[in-house]
Amino acid sequence: MDNRQVVIESLPEDKLSVDNFALRTASVPDPDQGEILCRTLALTVGAGQRAALQGSAGYAGAPRSGVVMGGTGVCRVVRSNAADVAEGSLVVCQSGWQDYSVHPASALRTVDPDGDPAHHLGVYGINGLTAYFGLFDIGDPQPGQSVVVSAAAGSVGHLVGQMAAVAGCRTVGVAGSEEKCRLLTESLGFDAAVSYRSPGYRHEFREACEGGIDVYFDNTGGEVLGSALRRMNLGGRIVCCGVVSQYDTSNPAPGPRGIPGLLINRRVRMEGFLVFDFADRYGEAIDSMRGWVNEGRLKPLNDEFHGLEETPRAFVDLLAGGNVGTRIVRIAD
Amino acid sequence: MDNRQVVIESLPEDKLSVDNFALRTASVPDPDQGEILCRTLALTVGAGQRAALQGSAGYAGAPRSGVVMGGTGVCRVVRSNAADVAEGSLVVCQSGWQDYSVHPASALRTVDPDGDPAHHLGVYGINGLTAYFGLFDIGDPQPGQSVVVSAAAGSVGHLVGQMAAVAGCRTVGVAGSEEKCRLLTESLGFDAAVSYRSPGYRHEFREACEGGIDVYFDNTGGEVLGSALRRMNLGGRIVCCGVVSQYDTSNPAPGPRGIPGLLINRRVRMEGFLVFDFADRYGEAIDSMRGWVNEGRLKPLNDEFHGLEETPRAFVDLLAGGNVGTRIVRIAD
Repeated sequence: MDNRQVVIESLPEDKLSVDNFALRTASVPDPDQGEILCRTLALTVGAGQRAALQGSAGYAGAPRSGVVMGGTGVCRVVRSNAADVAEGSLVVCQSGWQDYSVHPASALRTVDPDGDPAHHLGVYGINGLTAYFGLFDIGDPQPGQSVVVSAAAGSVGHLVGQMAAVAGCRTVGVAGSEEKCRLLTESLGFDAAVSYRSPGYRHEFREACEGGIDVYFDNTGGEVLGSALRRMNLGGRIVCCGVVSQYDTSNPAPGPRGIPGLLINRRVRMEGFLVFDFADRYGEAIDSMRGWVNEGRLKPLNDEFHGLEETPRAFVDLLAGGNVGTRIVRIAD
Repeated sequence: MDNRQVVIESLPEDKLSVDNFALRTASVPDPDQGEILCRTLALTVGAGQRAALQGSAGYAGAPRSGVVMGGTGVCRVVRSNAADVAEGSLVVCQSGWQDYSVHPASALRTVDPDGDPAHHLGVYGINGLTAYFGLFDIGDPQPGQSVVVSAAAGSVGHLVGQMAAVAGCRTVGVAGSEEKCRLLTESLGFDAAVSYRSPGYRHEFREACEGGIDVYFDNTGGEVLGSALRRMNLGGRIVCCGVVSQYDTSNPAPGPRGIPGLLINRRVRMEGFLVFDFADRYGEAIDSMRGWVNEGRLKPLNDEFHGLEETPRAFVDLLAGGNVGTRIVRIAD
């Protein structure tokens, strides 16, 4: 039985390309005592993974070539040498971009086997959890306040805006095309949406944010962060979640003008977080989100590719802004 | 009786000069019913006032020429038409740069008449209060943690470092000369101090901050902020208090690289504040600081000029980094 793997062939000099990856075939690993062999059913690809291919800015330590590309998958347990993990159960783990992987029981999160397994990579996975804890714990939105989110049609952003509406806020999304903006306002209930690629962006953003911004959920950094900074209300919060505008380059831009001056004048708090710090509260978040999904107040969107060999293309396209919702690559049923 | 006033003659194009101010003589104003006539005894001059001479970034609204320069003074009440303010009492108010000013009772803060009136502009005034609330409320230093402060020999900075030591922290100051650094370590109890003008600054800063930074109290913005950002520990706090590196120019530099990326990876909170938001707790802070001064754990430094006509020079010199401690201009006894 073969184990197909997507490995990092070379580190990107500037923009990532599919040529930075290669497909190879290895043998399926054997689980030791206490370990579990997992079959990847689906992977999610996120812009934050681009950072792992950088130097010191990487989330996942120093990048290396010749290793299997890391990533989160939802998997079926095919062999278990651990008493507390049943064969056939569904788990989420750092499978990497490969068909099979081996993990200790402590590295798996067992998830509800009902429904589409891919949901555990989207709304009930890292993307939903990131949106939830970033918005509620870091952003602290209050009813009637204004919440702006960048990369608003993205895996995290489209959930942030909908959850802010659940919290009683006015929601504005910034996205990369008119088409995405229409989706946000017409299908996902955003109060307004602005394309940062529009020639009239600055004016349109100012109009959409009339009354100022209380919570800005930043997935992009760069120019959109700069425009939000200038519209923050007194006591506003900036949730630093991602820097997608800066990932796909080896020469990051300087920070936005007005830092720290605007933070002082408007008493703004700007705070970074990683979802993993909230691991002991994932259950609470998933329960809340499941309730909102069942009530129809939270519509999770997936954006799918098919086949392990398509994962590099799914990733490169994502970095170019091609996705709407959570990018999923289905590997097996 | 004449009222000498320093007025804004012209707004600075780039660096402020004494020629941006002029001395004129007006008549002493008459207090209406409910108002108080105050004689300025001493003024304090702070770098933050430079921002008031900018455009939209100003703390004090749009700048204008031909008006009396704003500023905080400690004053003697010479005539009172308000029942609750006694003639002869000592008050702190926004006197502006002039001999006499008129205020409603609500705009005055009555202070302890014992001791040197100038202390109410330094440790028991806005500078001490800024250091206190910025450090304790925004920075939240814990015993054993590392606190770094920029403009550490300045009016706020020299108090921040000493209060951080009271809180049981290791303290590092960044200042503008070797002489200031020696003062910090030899007289004020800082554990280490680094001159940002030293050719070996980056290396020296890294050495002084070995073990990382838990609280960075930022009075400068700019390059010192950038170097601190790269040394923040997980969960660190950056207190945004001032941007002295950017005040004396009409073309502020971009923000530091690594924002927001470093904030995310290290879960750093960066928060701006203005001391006026804590006005209802000034008494608590002054009581604490008075205790530390009396115990010899907090040594407030003043740096004095004499004569109203010297105020512009005191201000320009301050912006060039000439001061140690709180800059005071004594006007009358």
